[in-house]
Amino acid sequence: MKTTRINLERLKKNLLEVGAVANAGSEGYTRLAYSPEEKQALNWLQEKMKALSLTVRQDRLGNVTGRWGEADKPAIAFGSHLDTVPSGGLYDGALGVIAGLECLEALKEAGALPDVPLELTAFVGEEANLLGGTFGSRAIAGLVKGSEDFENKLRQHEFTWEDVQSAGRSKDDYHCYLELHIEQGALLETNQKQIGIVTAIAGILRLVVAVAGRASHSGTTPMHLRQDALLDASRLIQEVNRLAVAANSDIVATVGEIAISPNLANVVPGQADLMIEIRGSSWAEMKGIEEQIRSWANANIDASISVAVEKHPMSLPASIQACIDEACQKQGKSYQYMFSGANHDANSMTALADVGMIFVPSKDGVSHHPDEYTSWEDIEAGANVMLETLQLLIEKYRQV
Amino acid sequence: MKTTRINLERLKKNLLEVGAVANAGSEGYTRLAYSPEEKQALNWLQEKMKALSLTVRQDRLGNVTGRWGEADKPAIAFGSHLDTVPSGGLYDGALGVIAGLECLEALKEAGALPDVPLELTAFVGEEANLLGGTFGSRAIAGLVKGSEDFENKLRQHEFTWEDVQSAGRSKDDYHCYLELHIEQGALLETNQKQIGIVTAIAGILRLVVAVAGRASHSGTTPMHLRQDALLDASRLIQEVNRLAVAANSDIVATVGEIAISPNLANVVPGQADLMIEIRGSSWAEMKGIEEQIRSWANANIDASISVAVEKHPMSLPASIQACIDEACQKQGKSYQYMFSGANHDANSMTALADVGMIFVPSKDGVSHHPDEYTSWEDIEAGANVMLETLQLLIEKYRQV
Repeated sequence: MKTTRINLERLKKNLLEVGAVANAGSEGYTRLAYSPEEKQALNWLQEKMKALSLTVRQDRLGNVTGRWGEADKPAIAFGSHLDTVPSGGLYDGALGVIAGLECLEALKEAGALPDVPLELTAFVGEEANLLGGTFGSRAIAGLVKGSEDFENKLRQHEFTWEDVQSAGRSKDDYHCYLELHIEQGALLETNQKQIGIVTAIAGILRLVVAVAGRASHSGTTPMHLRQDALLDASRLIQEVNRLAVAANSDIVATVGEIAISPNLANVVPGQADLMIEIRGSSWAEMKGIEEQIRSWANANIDASISVAVEKHPMSLPASIQACIDEACQKQGKSYQYMFSGANHDANSMTALADVGMIFVPSKDGVSHHPDEYTSWEDIEAGANVMLETLQLLIEKYRQV
Repeated sequence: MKTTRINLERLKKNLLEVGAVANAGSEGYTRLAYSPEEKQALNWLQEKMKALSLTVRQDRLGNVTGRWGEADKPAIAFGSHLDTVPSGGLYDGALGVIAGLECLEALKEAGALPDVPLELTAFVGEEANLLGGTFGSRAIAGLVKGSEDFENKLRQHEFTWEDVQSAGRSKDDYHCYLELHIEQGALLETNQKQIGIVTAIAGILRLVVAVAGRASHSGTTPMHLRQDALLDASRLIQEVNRLAVAANSDIVATVGEIAISPNLANVVPGQADLMIEIRGSSWAEMKGIEEQIRSWANANIDASISVAVEKHPMSLPASIQACIDEACQKQGKSYQYMFSGANHDANSMTALADVGMIFVPSKDGVSHHPDEYTSWEDIEAGANVMLETLQLLIEKYRQV
């Protein structure tokens, strides 16, 4: 087998073809979950897979799988998603699918044999949607929880609970799962690295905070008689930021939502509702920040705090990281280890397989926006590292 | 003429009768501007005025006037409004009208003669409404500005621009205007005073502030690479409060409105829009605070600031304050001088007459709420001070 490299021109052409399948009425790229545009992109992909003589399968939720190799053996799986946020970018999701397709094509061209089955998947509904983000991969991993309310939501997309159940796959289907994705942050760019090797997917802890004040007339309430909920909330916002900065780790904390009541120019705010989000790779550290926030709030303001979301961080296995590391070295690419602050289909797949993630840089850290951008040079580097990694994984699992 | 006192039982009965005219579907008291409930209350008042043999007049906007004395001489005027905010209290506005009615009845009972005409007015549409707050009194004072847009708004309440113009009165109609009102703040209660003598009606300066940040993914943007608009806004909120407290005067500053974008738990806020309101009795001091806010913002954050409202403070004449002071002393009531942070019909009337305002305490400073409360003892004190002041004013203007 000769030294295999991806064909950048072919990858480009494919990525732009998927990009062309976008809602014409919107800026950037719009292929919402379960929309005609997502379906059209998935159909396009199936045609491409068939042209490569893959065994193509689409489950009742829309997840598309193309397998090269025997049907009943565990596969080295890889992929991502083809849906976007409204007015999103060209790269988020699509790059992982198209790079996977390119790896298959490059391997076939190079005369490789499917000693270990390879399976490319495009998951449906990865972006935030009525059924929850990463819906397709959670259904495959058996992580979707049923309820009457949820079945009503399913019906709105013409799905049934049986559809969800029938999409489930088993651990026996997989050796591992690999996903190439844009970083959606600016760390690689800032550190001038081409590749990020993901060590963990961030846990998410969301706290709903209601800061109580006393609504009163802005003109008739002297400063010393006020209980201003927004003023207290603004102190809390400072403190949340201070704690995350002081941690000096990968932990991040954000107040991304705020609503005050009554929200009138002439009324001292009587209540402020905030959403605090903490992400990190250490659950203990995240809970520590939560504790510090609670202590500070108890001591300084009148606030009630409740937990809205608790998602533990997920460490990715060192063995797959080691393969990516070796691939980067073989290719002579600059790289760093990092955690993924965003959630991905890869997170769902940890329930079924050993998972690895490869990040490529995002210009200015921008994503979910028409300005989302990764250079072709970085894309070529990322796809070649992915290809190299797949070859190392084939070696690894061939011997199993 | 014997020593005149108001009849608290009669005042109570009248205030509760007006209170009974309230939208049955709402909590508290709801007589919105131009609503059937406001009209019904104004009709009730006209019947009461007729029973006192006043000359009753209602202009085409709904303002009701009852005059005791000659039609073509300047009057000692007094009154307030009968409309309320949605789910308001019993006292705001109505107390001033009913106390005025009681003063007339007490004077008649005591055998007083209308040496100087006395005129009670209930102004329509004082609370915030489509046509602007204090609409009725601004129309009487000739302060309403016409425009095509405004005429469209008038039409929604079945008014015409001619109606507005026909409501205008002249300086020759008035010696002075006196208004009893609840404080809507907690200063009198805190200082244990029964009467507030208003020295000035606050100026209002409103600044619209847009704080710019950079929206980015909350999970993928490390703390040191963020430009968080809400974090910067929270520093500005602290600073606005600090400046007003440090002024250690009657100046107040409030951030009562905030909106952030995109306002999502997983996005670092990209923009924060705030409304800063500054009120005080000194325009120079208010503009000084604005300057300090601008300097701080220039030095510390990325913000654009523009002026939305500029209303200069209005000093009330010392001569009327002196009459109220003398009345308080004669009645042996505790009192203090203070400024009015809220706007009132009295503010409009400064364009036509010398104006005085008498405040009575608001429990916990609450107003515009079903819990609005002033004790009957404080109401009696306030109404008697008003009656005494009217008698002093009659003496004063009889000699003119």
